[in-house]
Amino acid sequence: MSGVEKQTGRARGEEWWQTGIIEMSPGVIRLRGYEIQDLIGRVSFPAVIWLMLRGELPSEDEAALLGIALGAAVDHGPQAPSIAIARMAATCGVGINSAMASAINVLGDVHGGAGEQALSFYGDIAVALDGGMALNEAVSTRLDRFFGQEKGYVPGLGHRFHPVDPRAPRLLELVRDFAARGVVNGRFADIAEAVEADVARRKGKKIPLNIDGATAVIYGELGFPPPLTRGLFVLSRSVGILAHAWEQSQQSERNKGPLPREWLWAYSGPPARPLPGDEGADN
Amino acid sequence: MSGVEKQTGRARGEEWWQTGIIEMSPGVIRLRGYEIQDLIGRVSFPAVIWLMLRGELPSEDEAALLGIALGAAVDHGPQAPSIAIARMAATCGVGINSAMASAINVLGDVHGGAGEQALSFYGDIAVALDGGMALNEAVSTRLDRFFGQEKGYVPGLGHRFHPVDPRAPRLLELVRDFAARGVVNGRFADIAEAVEADVARRKGKKIPLNIDGATAVIYGELGFPPPLTRGLFVLSRSVGILAHAWEQSQQSERNKGPLPREWLWAYSGPPARPLPGDEGADN
Amino acid sequence: MSGVEKQTGRARGEEWWQTGIIEMSPGVIRLRGYEIQDLIGRVSFPAVIWLMLRGELPSEDEAALLGIALGAAVDHGPQAPSIAIARMAATCGVGINSAMASAINVLGDVHGGAGEQALSFYGDIAVALDGGMALNEAVSTRLDRFFGQEKGYVPGLGHRFHPVDPRAPRLLELVRDFAARGVVNGRFADIAEAVEADVARRKGKKIPLNIDGATAVIYGELGFPPPLTRGLFVLSRSVGILAHAWEQSQQSERNKGPLPREWLWAYSGPPARPLPGDEGADN
Amino acid sequence: MSGVEKQTGRARGEEWWQTGIIEMSPGVIRLRGYEIQDLIGRVSFPAVIWLMLRGELPSEDEAALLGIALGAAVDHGPQAPSIAIARMAATCGVGINSAMASAINVLGDVHGGAGEQALSFYGDIAVALDGGMALNEAVSTRLDRFFGQEKGYVPGLGHRFHPVDPRAPRLLELVRDFAARGVVNGRFADIAEAVEADVARRKGKKIPLNIDGATAVIYGELGFPPPLTRGLFVLSRSVGILAHAWEQSQQSERNKGPLPREWLWAYSGPPARPLPGDEGADN
Repeated sequence: MSGVEKQTGRARGEEWWQTGIIEMSPGVIRLRGYEIQDLIGRVSFPAVIWLMLRGELPSEDEAALLGIALGAAVDHGPQAPSIAIARMAATCGVGINSAMASAINVLGDVHGGAGEQALSFYGDIAVALDGGMALNEAVSTRLDRFFGQEKGYVPGLGHRFHPVDPRAPRLLELVRDFAARGVVNGRFADIAEAVEADVARRKGKKIPLNIDGATAVIYGELGFPPPLTRGLFVLSRSVGILAHAWEQSQQSERNKGPLPREWLWAYSGPPARPLPGDEGADN
Repeated sequence: MSGVEKQTGRARGEEWWQTGIIEMSPGVIRLRGYEIQDLIGRVSFPAVIWLMLRGELPSEDEAALLGIALGAAVDHGPQAPSIAIARMAATCGVGINSAMASAINVLGDVHGGAGEQALSFYGDIAVALDGGMALNEAVSTRLDRFFGQEKGYVPGLGHRFHPVDPRAPRLLELVRDFAARGVVNGRFADIAEAVEADVARRKGKKIPLNIDGATAVIYGELGFPPPLTRGLFVLSRSVGILAHAWEQSQQSERNKGPLPREWLWAYSGPPARPLPGDEGADN
Repeated sequence: MSGVEKQTGRARGEEWWQTGIIEMSPGVIRLRGYEIQDLIGRVSFPAVIWLMLRGELPSEDEAALLGIALGAAVDHGPQAPSIAIARMAATCGVGINSAMASAINVLGDVHGGAGEQALSFYGDIAVALDGGMALNEAVSTRLDRFFGQEKGYVPGLGHRFHPVDPRAPRLLELVRDFAARGVVNGRFADIAEAVEADVARRKGKKIPLNIDGATAVIYGELGFPPPLTRGLFVLSRSVGILAHAWEQSQQSERNKGPLPREWLWAYSGPPARPLPGDEGADN
Repeated sequence: MSGVEKQTGRARGEEWWQTGIIEMSPGVIRLRGYEIQDLIGRVSFPAVIWLMLRGELPSEDEAALLGIALGAAVDHGPQAPSIAIARMAATCGVGINSAMASAINVLGDVHGGAGEQALSFYGDIAVALDGGMALNEAVSTRLDRFFGQEKGYVPGLGHRFHPVDPRAPRLLELVRDFAARGVVNGRFADIAEAVEADVARRKGKKIPLNIDGATAVIYGELGFPPPLTRGLFVLSRSVGILAHAWEQSQQSERNKGPLPREWLWAYSGPPARPLPGDEGADN
């Protein structure tokens, strides 16, 4: 049987794992068409992240703005379930990769999805702007729908713990700087601030932009689709997850529980009882 | 090109995923050679577990003893990192499968490996018995090595919380019953009790067998290799993990942290400081 | 400071991890009010699973039927992503618990949710029956809504690979047996068969019940809520996941990829290109 | 009861989650003592990673070199189990965070540990140098021990697929540039090249440095301890994992298996057989 013929089933197999991200042959690795050795040392880490996710290289300024968003959300302390899980896992006899995996895994819709929701919300308004609607009207219409049909908190606004999240105003300030230099156009910053202002009018008090709203502004300005922002948040928070897993692993605790070792949980179930059939038994 | 020729690369691909566990063709599923519809309703769940892991069906008694060990270790409460993680994950917006995965993932060498270590320890003694050594001597020799060269706790003995782990004596009692009926030979029970007695002599106080030691006895009696006992423990504790994830998911908490919401962690790092270069700045 | 006063913050902490599943004190472990040593050896493994999830002990027959469903879905071979992942993970230098976790984690809405969807679908029909509607009408109304507003495959019917899934008719036969003995009332079996018959009339060909439909019938008969059926599927498939991870770990492969080692993927991205700015360069 | 008294149990709880990484109070987030708003926009993403892991800010050059190593190892294609798992998981109905978690989880001792092993190996040699031994002698002594007592491949050398890994020489060239500018001292580069040369002499052919050896050189030059290099590799490869999960999620596949959908695995277990007791049955 010839090599050509053998190729057939193999070609079908290789096609099954088709990708446009990476190309390899012996001695050659190309990412999105670029030789890896051309990228190394000439393209920053955030620019590599961009290239991998978007297919093209960003400008240096775009990469810098992406790096700013990634650096801003690395940690919010061990009251966050993900960070606590990383620390607990690190005491259970698994590798640092597995401690990180258990933690990253919980960055779901509730813990990791706020930025995605905020960017979707801003995106709805951006679509209305593209259709010719004025900013205030587009925001007001979207908020009417939110308060009428949806529920909960307006995405990107407010924080359980911080009266003002110190990351958000600094990030918005930077977006304005980058917009002034023409790197981005500032539209998502306009939208986010208009949402904040409209909600303040409705509620009679300001509910300030939070980290999820502020990073959603940046990711929106840079053209990332909403579901990718969850992935970017994972890359960002992974840094804190690693730092906490590492710090914990340098200590001697074993099987770290959520509460101090000598404490127990409260039990709220049925009182002690015999098995059915043993009810009247003496023993 | 003929079908035979196309087959070639395909055959190589199919060979890559070779297994002796399951065979399928359209309308046919066989586990270890048995038609699935022959197994269903005639072979208990523990017997299916045994068949999948060992390749042959157990006797009904063997399956019953396996089921007893699996049922005994399902839960030890939310101070265990795995159970706490399951509950935390369930509040983060991930599916119940992912909540379970984050939890199961931490059943590593420290949290999930005690049974494996106990069975290896007993196995070393069993090898000495096979070589003709008397039980007390085999136990004593192994413990000499343990106290001389290894460190920490003797595998399978003692419990941080329970003076006597209530699961262990009941499990040993059942092993003795099954041995009396000839289902198992009781050798691992002998070994475990001899270890317990020898350690009591050395320490001057009894350090009783714990759940890991007791289930290791059962798994050893039933012929499971030590590393598989970790897998069996995962199957067992998965039940508690699921129960806790489910109970938690029926409540309304979001992003459940390890401590009550209004509490913070203690900070032990450097005090607040300016960035290098800003030290003398006014702002 | 007195013990009572110290207690306060501790009590708040302990309350934070409240559960109705397990109660402990030194030497005492109670599951749902039962002493663990009373359960061990007297209650089967499926009965322990039921107790943990439902809060009360099942009858022996109910436990047997639960065990039948759990045993039926343990494996469908390494073309299923979960099983392939378990095998790949087992070659990467992680513990068997972590190999299992990576695999269990992917039993999500698509891979693990079919039973949950089927039971929800049957449950909608059961609600209509409770309201006095006849079976055929309730089924037809629900299917009208499905074909009108929803899309894709009718939950619980059809199989990509098996013309008839050999597990399904055997499981239905057993449900009928248990119903004949009064263990369950057979209503979900009626619903599933009526759905199958109605769809056959609409399509002009029978699309037979699959494993997810059949286990959904059992879980429905036994009173499990739909989201818990995903958890039960995880417990069941975990057996196959463990068996495959174990079989793989007994071989010598390292970093097992999805395709034979000497194969590559097909690349579909941009062709090789220089970095921007290097376009005209000689090197 | 006074606030001070209530504080006691709470303080014990808060102490349980002590960390030196992050400090918070309402409106304030400090990482390693720095206000988050001071870091944002002034410190690059790699510098934030360094600060979180090491406790102090790096120089700009050190951060740049860290970023180079992180960018170099982002992807090696879907034949790597981690990347394949990310793609498979993305088709199973879980969030992108969970797809990433299942993949990151397998970066264990075999798949993710090579850099850690290489840096430990180089570190042993560095200790000998600190003790006054000459480079060639230190390398030779360590390699004697390796070939005498250990086994397998010399850490950091050789590649299954690439005759020369194109990332390694480029990374070494950059380390030399940074050493020439005094950012690092080049000692780990010297060690790695001396190891490569000594092995070439022993084997009679060059087995060139690979990506794990080259990044280990950088992490060693920058002062990272070996186990942290696994964590850094996770941060790096997470980028490729995210890119592949994302690319896959934009397609319509469901439950992507390792092989083309119409292929099966090869079965190597016992042939079809009846249940014990049914052997002579007619049906």
